[in-house]
Formats: sequence, structure tokens, C-alpha cells
Amino acid sequence: MKISVLTLFPEYFDSLLNTSIIKRAREKNLFEFETVDFRAFTNEKHGHVDDTPYGGGAGMVLMCQPILDALKTIRTDQSLVILLSPQGKTFNQSIAKDLSTKNHLIFICGHYEGFDERIRDYVDVQMSLGDFVLTGGEGACTVMCDAILRLLPGVIRQDSSEDDSFSNGLLEYPQYTRPEVYDGKRVPDVLLSGHHANIRKWRHEKSLENTYYHRKDLLEKIALNDEDRKYIESLQKD
Amino acid sequence: MKISVLTLFPEYFDSLLNTSIIKRAREKNLFEFETVDFRAFTNEKHGHVDDTPYGGGAGMVLMCQPILDALKTIRTDQSLVILLSPQGKTFNQSIAKDLSTKNHLIFICGHYEGFDERIRDYVDVQMSLGDFVLTGGEGACTVMCDAILRLLPGVIRQDSSEDDSFSNGLLEYPQYTRPEVYDGKRVPDVLLSGHHANIRKWRHEKSLENTYYHRKDLLEKIALNDEDRKYIESLQKD
Repeated sequence: MKISVLTLFPEYFDSLLNTSIIKRAREKNLFEFETVDFRAFTNEKHGHVDDTPYGGGAGMVLMCQPILDALKTIRTDQSLVILLSPQGKTFNQSIAKDLSTKNHLIFICGHYEGFDERIRDYVDVQMSLGDFVLTGGEGACTVMCDAILRLLPGVIRQDSSEDDSFSNGLLEYPQYTRPEVYDGKRVPDVLLSGHHANIRKWRHEKSLENTYYHRKDLLEKIALNDEDRKYIESLQKD
Repeated sequence: MKISVLTLFPEYFDSLLNTSIIKRAREKNLFEFETVDFRAFTNEKHGHVDDTPYGGGAGMVLMCQPILDALKTIRTDQSLVILLSPQGKTFNQSIAKDLSTKNHLIFICGHYEGFDERIRDYVDVQMSLGDFVLTGGEGACTVMCDAILRLLPGVIRQDSSEDDSFSNGLLEYPQYTRPEVYDGKRVPDVLLSGHHANIRKWRHEKSLENTYYHRKDLLEKIALNDEDRKYIESLQKD
């Protein structure tokens, strides 16, 4: 996979690329990553990439020309062009999985107060990280890249990603490590029992329980079997 | 405001702190920011901060001791301690506004496959950025800090943040800048008319329209006046 990012702040991505798991994956060439500073493509004097909005109002608006000319130089038949925008589809784990199978992702990061509306006509998909406002698209893009890249083969252990929250539609079960007692709080007996079937059952029930208490909405999106449904009914009675 | 971040990767936050608006705000001392590497607090040999999970399974689990000992050294009566976790409340603009009024935020960034469940007992609130899995909490924390810090007085122009998507519960209206025609696409006539009342009306209707077509769920969360309701009914008929 290759990821290209159109941005005014290429150095913003250094943190992602030089930290921990993503750093090691990049050193193993498990993906390609490039930033393209679209300021270099402007036809304006002094490197301007934005201008005042038609109709008046606060702030500056990114112009079509620099972004779309930059896009032309890197887009191929294999590219999926993603515009980061509050009105886009909200990013989630199933979108991350889908995007992790593509050959070439191009992200366009807006900045300042907004971008010319006509830019939307040239992208394949619009995506939002959530219902909040950022100083630019770079932070959102970094998070999306992290979620996508960790799903590429070889980046993390396969058995590890299968246990993730959201991967089976449920929140994760509680995890414990040494010591057995911390500040008077004990690890649940079942985890010390060595009885694997019981441990599996306990973890699955705790996963259902966590999801029921913290994110009931997730339960509506997945197919539960009879046993799961019965367990959740028992929680409702409590 | 002061933000403290407990993390194994302090350098991850350089991008946020050294870019654009947040960089300028920091240079003006509009906020304080510190990272605390909790690896420095471990009682284990070789700087270990994690161990295998009780009950078996893939991956390593962050231990209570290093994180909670680090937390003790920075927590005060004024601190709000936020644990980044998929089972937390989903971050949004109204949470960002609320957090931007606090004196001291402490974020705990997990990493690897998870952290000891007992850590949850020592925090004030658990927060999630969305329904996806990251290699660590750092990316999520960066985005939350960006959303919070831009709301501090003096960071961006006041009239600018009032127009943001989500700030009035609606998505933003379309913005246009020069040229009037780009690749055959014209700026809407109303924006060139100079008629301020019409422009205001058009923008408000387009805001309603964007929200109706892209994020109908947001409309249910806000109080619409009669005129807005009528306009949305006219969209439904189309």
C-alpha cells in the first residue's frame, strides 16, 4: 500500500512515522508514505494558497488550483482520493479494514477555516473522524493512517488484532497482569484458575457486559447467538 | 490551562506542538503542555512497564504501578484525569468545549494490547475518539488536545470558531473563493450579489441542507425554529 497526503504541514506526520509500531513497519517497507505540500503548486505570488470567501465572512478559504493541480500529479487509476471534511462519513473500524485493502490512498487535509466547495467534485470519498472541529485535517489523517496501517499484514501480530475492541463488534474484556493484588484490588479468581474453557467464557461474557453497559448501541449492529441474548437478558434483570 | 500527558512516546506530541495555530498559541503561552514518560517510574528491571495477561492470550498488558505512580506525582485537586479507552464516552465538540474550561487535564495514553483493568479505578473519566482501534492512545490524545486548545481564548479568532461545523449543531455552509469560474464551475450568484441578508439566508439554508443530506442524526439533537422546520420539510418533498 501507498499513502499520499496533500498537506501544508508535511512535518506533522513525522510523529506517526517515527513512533513504535508504525516506525518498525515502515522500516520493514510494509507500506510507502509520502507527503505532498500543495503550497509548491500554487500559481499565486508569495506562495498564497487561500483567499477571502465570496459573500464575506471571517477567515480564509483554500483555493481549488493549488490542491487540484497537486492532486493531478499523483493520482492514478489505482488511487482512492479521500477528502477530510466534517460532512464526510464517520470513520470506523470497518472503513479502516476496507481502506487497508486498497493500493493507493490519497488524503487531502484542509486547513484554516475551510476550502473551496468545488474541490469536493474531484474526490472519491469524504470522511470525518468525528463530531468535533480541529485546526486542520492533519490530526484526523494521522489517526486514520494509524488505524489503517496497523491492519496491514505483518504490522502487528494477527492473533493480537483479532481480540481488539470493535473487531467482533464488541468492546474488549478486562485484562490483568501482575501483581495479583494491587492496592487491595485482586485479579478475578477465574483468570488464575488455569481452566481455559472457563476463562474463555468469562472473557466473552465480560465483553458482552462491557458493551451492554458502555455502548449498548453496538449490540444492535451485530448478530448475537441465543446464549449471548440470554446473558444480556440476565444483565437487564439485574 | 495545563495539559499533562502520561505516555511512553513523549516525542509523539512534537507534531502537534510545532505546527501552525497550536505552535503560535504555545509561543504566546496561552497554555502549558507537558509529557510524562511513565517508563521512568517503573520498579521493574530493564524499564519494563508491561507483562503477560493473567488467563493467557496474545500480547502484553500495561501494569498498574508505573502509570499510577507517575500519576500521583502530577495530580492535584485541580486535575481532571482522562483515560483513553474504547469503552469511554465518545469525544465530541461539546465535550471539547467543556474540557477547554478546566484548569488541568491529565491524559493517560495506553499502548500495546491493553492496560490492567484496575487502572480505571483511579481516573475521573474514560474517553474514546471513535469506533476504531489505534496502535496507542497518542494519536487520539493529539486530536483531542487540538480540538480543546483551539477553543482557548486567543488561539483562533472568536468570529471564526462561531462558524464551525458542529458549533451550532449544524454542518457548515459551502465556502467559495477566487476564481469565479474554476474548470467550468461557477460560484453561486447570491455570493456575488453583495446582498448581505440574502447571503445570510442562503448560507443558513445550505447549512440545514448539508446537515439534512449528510448527517440527518444531528438535526434530531438541536432545537429548530418554525422557519427551519419548514425549509427541511421542503427538502423532504424534493
